[in-house]
Amino acid sequence: MSTGKPKIVANKYFTSNTAKDVWSLTNEAAAQAANNSNNQGRELINLGQGFFSYSPPQFAIKEAQKALEIPLVNQYSPTRGRPSLINSLIDMYTPIYNTELKAENVVVTTGANEGILSCLMGLLNAGDEVIVFEPFFDQYIPNIELCGGKVVYVPINPPKELDRRNTRGEEWTIDFEQFEKAITSKTKAVIINTPHNPIGKVFTHSELTTLGNICVKHNVAIISDEVYEHLYFTDSFTRVATLSPEIGQLTLTVGSAGKSFAATGWRIGWVVSLNAELLSYAAKAHTRICFASPSPLQEACANSINDALKIGYFENMRQEYITKFKIFTSVFDELGLPYTAPEGSYFVLVDFSKVKIPKDYPYPEEIMDKGKDFRISHWLINELGVVAIPPTEFYIKEHEKAAENLLRFAVCKDDAYLKKAVERLRLLKDYL
Amino acid sequence: MSTGKPKIVANKYFTSNTAKDVWSLTNEAAAQAANNSNNQGRELINLGQGFFSYSPPQFAIKEAQKALEIPLVNQYSPTRGRPSLINSLIDMYTPIYNTELKAENVVVTTGANEGILSCLMGLLNAGDEVIVFEPFFDQYIPNIELCGGKVVYVPINPPKELDRRNTRGEEWTIDFEQFEKAITSKTKAVIINTPHNPIGKVFTHSELTTLGNICVKHNVAIISDEVYEHLYFTDSFTRVATLSPEIGQLTLTVGSAGKSFAATGWRIGWVVSLNAELLSYAAKAHTRICFASPSPLQEACANSINDALKIGYFENMRQEYITKFKIFTSVFDELGLPYTAPEGSYFVLVDFSKVKIPKDYPYPEEIMDKGKDFRISHWLINELGVVAIPPTEFYIKEHEKAAENLLRFAVCKDDAYLKKAVERLRLLKDYL
Repeated sequence: MSTGKPKIVANKYFTSNTAKDVWSLTNEAAAQAANNSNNQGRELINLGQGFFSYSPPQFAIKEAQKALEIPLVNQYSPTRGRPSLINSLIDMYTPIYNTELKAENVVVTTGANEGILSCLMGLLNAGDEVIVFEPFFDQYIPNIELCGGKVVYVPINPPKELDRRNTRGEEWTIDFEQFEKAITSKTKAVIINTPHNPIGKVFTHSELTTLGNICVKHNVAIISDEVYEHLYFTDSFTRVATLSPEIGQLTLTVGSAGKSFAATGWRIGWVVSLNAELLSYAAKAHTRICFASPSPLQEACANSINDALKIGYFENMRQEYITKFKIFTSVFDELGLPYTAPEGSYFVLVDFSKVKIPKDYPYPEEIMDKGKDFRISHWLINELGVVAIPPTEFYIKEHEKAAENLLRFAVCKDDAYLKKAVERLRLLKDYL
Repeated sequence: MSTGKPKIVANKYFTSNTAKDVWSLTNEAAAQAANNSNNQGRELINLGQGFFSYSPPQFAIKEAQKALEIPLVNQYSPTRGRPSLINSLIDMYTPIYNTELKAENVVVTTGANEGILSCLMGLLNAGDEVIVFEPFFDQYIPNIELCGGKVVYVPINPPKELDRRNTRGEEWTIDFEQFEKAITSKTKAVIINTPHNPIGKVFTHSELTTLGNICVKHNVAIISDEVYEHLYFTDSFTRVATLSPEIGQLTLTVGSAGKSFAATGWRIGWVVSLNAELLSYAAKAHTRICFASPSPLQEACANSINDALKIGYFENMRQEYITKFKIFTSVFDELGLPYTAPEGSYFVLVDFSKVKIPKDYPYPEEIMDKGKDFRISHWLINELGVVAIPPTEFYIKEHEKAAENLLRFAVCKDDAYLKKAVERLRLLKDYL
């Protein structure tokens, strides 16, 4: 319906970024491919987006149902979070931080995504720079840019033999000289993600100490995205905030109930910091962004954390994921397709260089200017009915070569589903 | 803990706005006053913040509990909202808009607050102006400013006899010539709120037509905050988006499950627009702000809207609020304290000019540079144990005289509580 009047000119950020994101492209391709001749009569195996195929634990569901019965738990919570959840988070993190945390060290947010946005909006002035490592979680970029910040990219360099053998997370390395050179007088913060999506890398004590000390030297805040904190398969998991008092004073650490309780739809996250003042700015931003977070789900998380700590739920989850990765990666071992051995998170990057895709395979126009991995992903959905994410979405155009033969698979699915995935992926042997 | 290093310089917006907001001030005053000598042995009556003292309806609680039982309803929803909720909103609004709405006309947000922020972030470029009517809902201002926008204030002029007799919402008027003069080449949008918080005014068909036509003339978007849409006590409720196709094309209308289902802690809201393209920018912003909204509570709202439409819940709620206002305002009739007769929302503004507060009453330092109503509110909390909100918080400093003798009371409380409030407020007769 045209009014003949000039149209409202919307935010340039959105009118100029009109390319579809990887989630839309992949979901649409999956929907279209679901009933093509190859996929007819078989289930589409979706290992794309990182949502769980199964329910949160029964204790968490029960806690949520109980919380709903309390009239006032359906009303606004304090903007910084319900005292019950803040107390549970204090109980969970105090032994880890090895110092008695207080309420001023914790802010509850509406998911980790809004937690990171709150940190950025709390800190950034127009023109400030934020260093992001490639590959990055895609939301970081608009979150920085919408706060008036400028993204500065520093690569996590892949191992040279990525296409020839299985590699380990620690072979994906940051050149810390390059990182330090990227810091300018305008650098306000760096975002790190450990365990890392999509690499599955757990940053080592040594790496994080080097990074932290550089940040102390240059007074750069650290936003540590630790949403996969309970999913590390290395001997230990280092938290940058704990490495020295000086590093702790610069660090905002982001956590997620969605990842911790297989409840990505609950939208409860949090930010923890030893520096209450630094955290207060994230809290102020959060108040303006969402005002407060969903009360019954906060209350459910408060009680679920207590339940989880009592029954060793997080440790059990780790063990379950070790099994899941074992089930899933077996097929790539069979086929001889190299992957990055998962050290953490629920993702695995697999190298498809050896897979022979017909040169004249037909692709939709909208992915032709994207990385080669978008075409591999499209082919895999259409020929095998398996959905995976092309990871060049997590790189800027100039650097996407590093990941153009990789696909990211999410294993946050029940074991039976992963076994079906393995069976289906076995069909790849006809293309080697 | 000082590191001797320079501190991180946070967002100037937050470091320069350090005054406590009205919610913190009032809640802290209430906490302190709860056990003073006047209030010992009696309950503090809190009619401050607009949260419900009672539970959401049982059908909504049951729907939420059922939703939690479905494994995938605990995972991410599509960023624009669950199809089930979008469909329920289409069913609810199609008869009102008198045109068959489609999914592209609806976006689910994480509360109406994030809905308004999404509209603003979707539309504003740095330096754009947004017109806001005074008194305003306080969150509008940071939401505009954090998106790089500039707020332009236009008053809703109070009736002259505010302190002498009960007045009606329609006596609070906008000077539309003044409004039109406030529009510049940089004006991107105007925010209106009907039914209005805190005035309780329902804008008339004629007022909204005038406003809408001026917006069409100057190509200004209308963000219509209609979160109290089910709480109007006038004969009808006019929605600006429905007044002409041209006005509809400029309007984004914001609604709230929290207000509709007495569940302010659920954080489910929505934006509806006849202009799918305009709405798409709000949707894109929402994706970056919160990614998606809480799934089980979305599902609960989807089914609750269906339930509500079947049993006439919204009409019953209106009738209940007519009763609540009758109960509550009776005490001001008795005392002869003038108020603005509630036409909508769950707030009532009462004029305290006649109440004699000792000149030497001791006030805390932090409210001394605020409007006189902050002192009236402080006195009322401490002397009578009744919490109300000083409405000059909803004005800029230069214009706060207009409301300096008023207090805002929220009646979203159960009837027994309102009766207790009446009993307590009767004590005011000793101060007249």
